[in-house]
Amino acid sequence: MIKIAVLGYGTVGSGVVEVIQTNHRSINIKAADEIEIKYVLDLRDFPGDPVQEKVVHDFDVIEADPEIRIVVETMGGLHPAYEFTKRALLAGKSVCTSNKELVAAYGTELLQIARDRELNYMFEASCGGGIPIIRPLNSSLTADEIDEITGILNGTTNYILTKMAVDGSDFDEALREAQQNGYAERNPEADIEGYDACRKIAILSSLAYGSHVSYQDIYTEGITKITSADIKYAQTIGASIKLLATSRKVGDEFYAMVSPVMINASNPLYSVQGVFNAIFIHGNVLGDAMFYGSGAGKLPTASAVVADVVDCAKHLDRNVRFEWSDQQLELMPVGRVRNRFFVRVAGTMAAEMQKIRSIFGEVETVSVPGLSGEFAFITEKMPESEFQDGISQLDGVRSTIRVRF
Amino acid sequence: MIKIAVLGYGTVGSGVVEVIQTNHRSINIKAADEIEIKYVLDLRDFPGDPVQEKVVHDFDVIEADPEIRIVVETMGGLHPAYEFTKRALLAGKSVCTSNKELVAAYGTELLQIARDRELNYMFEASCGGGIPIIRPLNSSLTADEIDEITGILNGTTNYILTKMAVDGSDFDEALREAQQNGYAERNPEADIEGYDACRKIAILSSLAYGSHVSYQDIYTEGITKITSADIKYAQTIGASIKLLATSRKVGDEFYAMVSPVMINASNPLYSVQGVFNAIFIHGNVLGDAMFYGSGAGKLPTASAVVADVVDCAKHLDRNVRFEWSDQQLELMPVGRVRNRFFVRVAGTMAAEMQKIRSIFGEVETVSVPGLSGEFAFITEKMPESEFQDGISQLDGVRSTIRVRF
Repeated sequence: MIKIAVLGYGTVGSGVVEVIQTNHRSINIKAADEIEIKYVLDLRDFPGDPVQEKVVHDFDVIEADPEIRIVVETMGGLHPAYEFTKRALLAGKSVCTSNKELVAAYGTELLQIARDRELNYMFEASCGGGIPIIRPLNSSLTADEIDEITGILNGTTNYILTKMAVDGSDFDEALREAQQNGYAERNPEADIEGYDACRKIAILSSLAYGSHVSYQDIYTEGITKITSADIKYAQTIGASIKLLATSRKVGDEFYAMVSPVMINASNPLYSVQGVFNAIFIHGNVLGDAMFYGSGAGKLPTASAVVADVVDCAKHLDRNVRFEWSDQQLELMPVGRVRNRFFVRVAGTMAAEMQKIRSIFGEVETVSVPGLSGEFAFITEKMPESEFQDGISQLDGVRSTIRVRF
Repeated sequence: MIKIAVLGYGTVGSGVVEVIQTNHRSINIKAADEIEIKYVLDLRDFPGDPVQEKVVHDFDVIEADPEIRIVVETMGGLHPAYEFTKRALLAGKSVCTSNKELVAAYGTELLQIARDRELNYMFEASCGGGIPIIRPLNSSLTADEIDEITGILNGTTNYILTKMAVDGSDFDEALREAQQNGYAERNPEADIEGYDACRKIAILSSLAYGSHVSYQDIYTEGITKITSADIKYAQTIGASIKLLATSRKVGDEFYAMVSPVMINASNPLYSVQGVFNAIFIHGNVLGDAMFYGSGAGKLPTASAVVADVVDCAKHLDRNVRFEWSDQQLELMPVGRVRNRFFVRVAGTMAAEMQKIRSIFGEVETVSVPGLSGEFAFITEKMPESEFQDGISQLDGVRSTIRVRF
């Protein structure tokens, strides 16, 4: 019997309890032991709930109980999740978490504490919800040197962008609908500004490249400026707009970036719709691979957390090594990153193209029937700084979006 | 230093040598030890090749050398691969393989020998080439009860079907082109008749459901009867034809089947093109997930084999448990499996529909501009046996293909 404690009985925490109850038979077989939830830590009581007898309000109880071998942290936020995680590890308990904010900020330290004590700190659910990606990166893609990770890592923004593309709705409208359907929070900033995706690509990149990528170093741009007109242009050229979180090795350097990007059907991420997430990976011998699934939601996320619990149960007193050193990975300045850019401008091609060509050289042009008084062009690949210089010389710019095809 | 031997210096075997050379630095970090290839077993000599000094012709040398801890079996075929694998395990060496034929036929026995001796028998490359799927199934999807696996598991057939769809070419023509481009073997039977996909779905199903699925029990139908006309009908209804290998839990029963299936854009497998493979999995708490990548090819397959070598190196003298018991999983008789069916018939709707409706009830009809003197209909879901009964009463049937939407 392995006794565990769940910190936080919110969406994911209650999902963890439900998954362990629903699949207890098969989970116990795979863990080669019986997993029992002894405590649920929450500020609230849950009278009438099956866990009511297990609820405690004081972390000390869990910390002091030597029977607890695994702690599930599904509280979210940095504090007190960080303090509780650290105390749990120092008390000899392994910790599984869905908390990307905490992993991105304190992952190296917590992994080191776990390693020093032959314990485990696991965080499969922190990226891509239920999609198995952390463990495959760490223990399957070991023959490769990974040179790209590009993901649709945030279900809320992908839902909004899909809605806008399907219904022709505007951003505000699609956001409201996402909120009504429970796909966006009342304060949606972390999702729509790309902060959530930024933390996830920081975690994935740290694991893939073996050195710590600070999320603060990652250029991050959300989807709030995307309009229904932008989407019409994208559709005209057979593209969709996705919030991509990407990191790439270019020569001996790395860059990382979160931003809306136009992609077309040649990209396996093109058909990832709604709240689904997907992570594309390129390895130097593997070539292309993609992992797709439910990027959020109570049960899919809980599925990933419980898979970590099973792995911790199979590795009590034995650290599963993660190649994530505290050595900092220096990222290339964003100005030197090369991209193609889509630019929407007011005016007519007849009047504007000469100036545009004089600044950007050869460009493709796009116009959308029904959108008059404006058009768009797509540049060749150029450094971001050069593009910014160019665009500052142009009047009437309505939007700029990176293009990857 | 961990010394290994590679059995068979063909496509995959030479890929393994290449991958270990190319990425030796990162591989040694992840294995936490230095991996060195001591022997390459082959009937041939390779003068001038970097491995020429390592080539041996007699397996006894490898078996008798206590320095060899890991054996890579990339010979293919059942014999002598089976005998060598067994002897290697009995001599205390872990074995990694890409040999799906061997794993499907003798997997349970070889896993048991490995388990009894705290060794490992690993076979990530046996299904889906470079796509990490065996290890995720075994160690990531542990919180779930899996109730469906459906894969495009054979790159050759997917290349042929993609070619036919893109170019409008006929099967024979597309097969010839696949052979010219090295995507199909001179004797293509194992691929085009679905035997290869059959073994792979047997392996994946055994792992997912924990009981042994015999590949001999799986209804298997290849793609040789698919015509360019069938593909035109599929395109008319927004579908593509894929060779799907599938196994599903229905109530308390399981079925497994390999056959061409029409799927549409709502299926994540729809956009898997050319030699790429993908495996869709549904778990009772995870929901939908898909794994996509290079299903074959020298380096992608070698990437998966070497990932197994790394895992074996991390688990010397410690068995990584696989839930694949020798208890047989009884499959539902194929006649009771329920599917929708597409049927192409000679004649006109005016003349034939009354009879068709009297046999099959309500059906959808499809006709393709330019294909005169014939049309098609799609049935509702019905048991396979009932469909076969019905179809035997109908004249002029040109093709029948399962439909999944």
